[in-house]
Amino acid sequence: MSSSSAPRQLPSLSARVHDLHASPIREILAVVGRPGMISFAGGLPAAETFPDFGLSAPDSVLQYGPTEGDPALRERIAEELADVGLDCGPEQVLVLSGSQQGIDLVGKLFIDPGTTVAVESPTYLAALQVFRFFGARFAPFTADTVSAAGFRDAKPAFAYAIPTFQNPTGHCYTTAQRDALAAACEGAGVPLFEDDPYRDLVYDACERRPVCAGLKDSPWIYQGSFSKSLAPGLRLGFLAASPEFFTYLVRLKQAADLHSNRLSQWLVLQQLESPERRERLAGLADFYRKKRDLFELALERHFGALASWETPAGGLFFWLTLNRRIDTRKLLPIAIEQGVAFMPGEAFYPDSPAATGTLRLNFSHAADDEIDRGLAQLAALVGAQQD
Amino acid sequence: MSSSSAPRQLPSLSARVHDLHASPIREILAVVGRPGMISFAGGLPAAETFPDFGLSAPDSVLQYGPTEGDPALRERIAEELADVGLDCGPEQVLVLSGSQQGIDLVGKLFIDPGTTVAVESPTYLAALQVFRFFGARFAPFTADTVSAAGFRDAKPAFAYAIPTFQNPTGHCYTTAQRDALAAACEGAGVPLFEDDPYRDLVYDACERRPVCAGLKDSPWIYQGSFSKSLAPGLRLGFLAASPEFFTYLVRLKQAADLHSNRLSQWLVLQQLESPERRERLAGLADFYRKKRDLFELALERHFGALASWETPAGGLFFWLTLNRRIDTRKLLPIAIEQGVAFMPGEAFYPDSPAATGTLRLNFSHAADDEIDRGLAQLAALVGAQQD
Repeated sequence: MSSSSAPRQLPSLSARVHDLHASPIREILAVVGRPGMISFAGGLPAAETFPDFGLSAPDSVLQYGPTEGDPALRERIAEELADVGLDCGPEQVLVLSGSQQGIDLVGKLFIDPGTTVAVESPTYLAALQVFRFFGARFAPFTADTVSAAGFRDAKPAFAYAIPTFQNPTGHCYTTAQRDALAAACEGAGVPLFEDDPYRDLVYDACERRPVCAGLKDSPWIYQGSFSKSLAPGLRLGFLAASPEFFTYLVRLKQAADLHSNRLSQWLVLQQLESPERRERLAGLADFYRKKRDLFELALERHFGALASWETPAGGLFFWLTLNRRIDTRKLLPIAIEQGVAFMPGEAFYPDSPAATGTLRLNFSHAADDEIDRGLAQLAALVGAQQD
Repeated sequence: MSSSSAPRQLPSLSARVHDLHASPIREILAVVGRPGMISFAGGLPAAETFPDFGLSAPDSVLQYGPTEGDPALRERIAEELADVGLDCGPEQVLVLSGSQQGIDLVGKLFIDPGTTVAVESPTYLAALQVFRFFGARFAPFTADTVSAAGFRDAKPAFAYAIPTFQNPTGHCYTTAQRDALAAACEGAGVPLFEDDPYRDLVYDACERRPVCAGLKDSPWIYQGSFSKSLAPGLRLGFLAASPEFFTYLVRLKQAADLHSNRLSQWLVLQQLESPERRERLAGLADFYRKKRDLFELALERHFGALASWETPAGGLFFWLTLNRRIDTRKLLPIAIEQGVAFMPGEAFYPDSPAATGTLRLNFSHAADDEIDRGLAQLAALVGAQQD
């Protein structure tokens, strides 16, 4: 962890970031909040004109707010991060409009056409989509193969990883794997972008300490989400970053949407400060653990002879490797025709392989009675597939 | 207006857009909403796990939603657009997380390093900031100088304009100026990006018909905001676009933040559907008209001998041109020291001029008794300035 050390030599950023200047308006607005200041500067509407939305939140949530996020929420997030070992101050926390936004901002920060990004293979497909959009090439790694030598060869601008209940595999990095990823970043001087949206959905004992918390010298960006532990419709997440990156990320956020929804920020803060918070998280884990176990029983019944999988210790997905390496994309239209949807594994690979025989199954959304029926149908389809 | 015509030859888009593919997850999610479908595809949390936020909104606002926006809101927005002459269907409406997001998406859609963008001079500085960030060069125009010949010479990828209560000048394009801008776009085959956040803040009779509504052949993007007419803290805006651009913009939105806050979408819809809506808008205009008139009286008192201005028929700003062409950026720190903030005019010019003797004054935010005091102070400062 390097939160308090002096900024080191800046890693290589995208060319466009050099044209990224703070908005004079926002810089000034930061000052005009001082008591007694008469401001003709910003474009703030008069609070007297806001309609009554019938909310229990304070009226202040209706006005423009700081790009970084509301101070009380940033403090609370910093406290929660300190609890899990990531010792950064609230001044390093940026509230996001969902963690997809963090991926967009990090893409803008680092990626020019041709920039190499180290990514797990497979990994979250919407991250691949954004990185590719900004022009990235990929240097794939896995929890088992990651190494400083590999990173030194590939020279990525940063490494993107989901060490805790990985999407799509559900894998939770062991302590040794976390250490190896941290050592690879430090050994090759590669910044780490750690995406951690599922950490609260934990069903079995396992190491969940952020890999960023184990970094001594490498700069880092860590992000989390309230979509899974609270509610996705509120579109709220956050990132924390080492000082090299933080100011850039705030400016990028400012340019992207000025700041995040303040009503959501207030609602989430109430939940984080609720005395029932611990109990609620435990209930959440219980709910999903039951669902996972039920799903796995049905999987054993129908896919026991067709596929293998790791029982996910958390998160929302089973990742199946079929005994036959078929292209599951070809299976999808037939399955949908029959009323069952799944995610073909091929979409999650950075190098667009032809056929991987993998598929991702979400176990949190289908009703209990649909699970057995849906998996039976899917297994029949897979069984009938002659490759 | 060309909403229903077949797509024409596509204008020149950014190189990165060619790498922009729809997310397989989102494409599939669009299908799995069908009744009876068993979905193991997405990563939707179980609705049973959402906490009770004490909201009067339906629970569905807590779940993930469509990238384009909630259907009822899109329909309502399309109706309001039809009322002002922009006849597009709800399938051309994209809900945004505030209209700053529209600027980011349009920047991504069109701008590579070196791309020319036609912009008003002066114009909204956060738009200049985003376009510059993506690598734009600017071809400046004004309501009086815009022409097809100018656009043909400059070959901009698109033209960005705020014809109604322009930021920073407050100017409302006359009918002739609207026609000229439309003719310039059509004559040179330049797409128009019309930004219209202030249209509901109207104090005097004036032409407010969207310029996009007057286009016959040129493709267009029109955007509006609920920040000024409802509340900025909800971070909600929208765009409508001709078919050439719409699919791209949806994918860009998907990659940026999946979709906009659904609670805000619901709250805004209630306001748009409220039987008191017309009355509320009239009250809003009355409130700000009084404020503008009070501000202008104080301006005449203190700046009558120092500056000239156009009385804004709407919006939130007075734009002052000082008799002496001083660099008002140098004035700002002194003014702030004395407890008054304003926006130096120089920041709004695309070509970063040395000294313009202009400043933008917001009249909506300061309390009535602060206005006279603040302007007196500012005028004393300007008067003392020896250039």
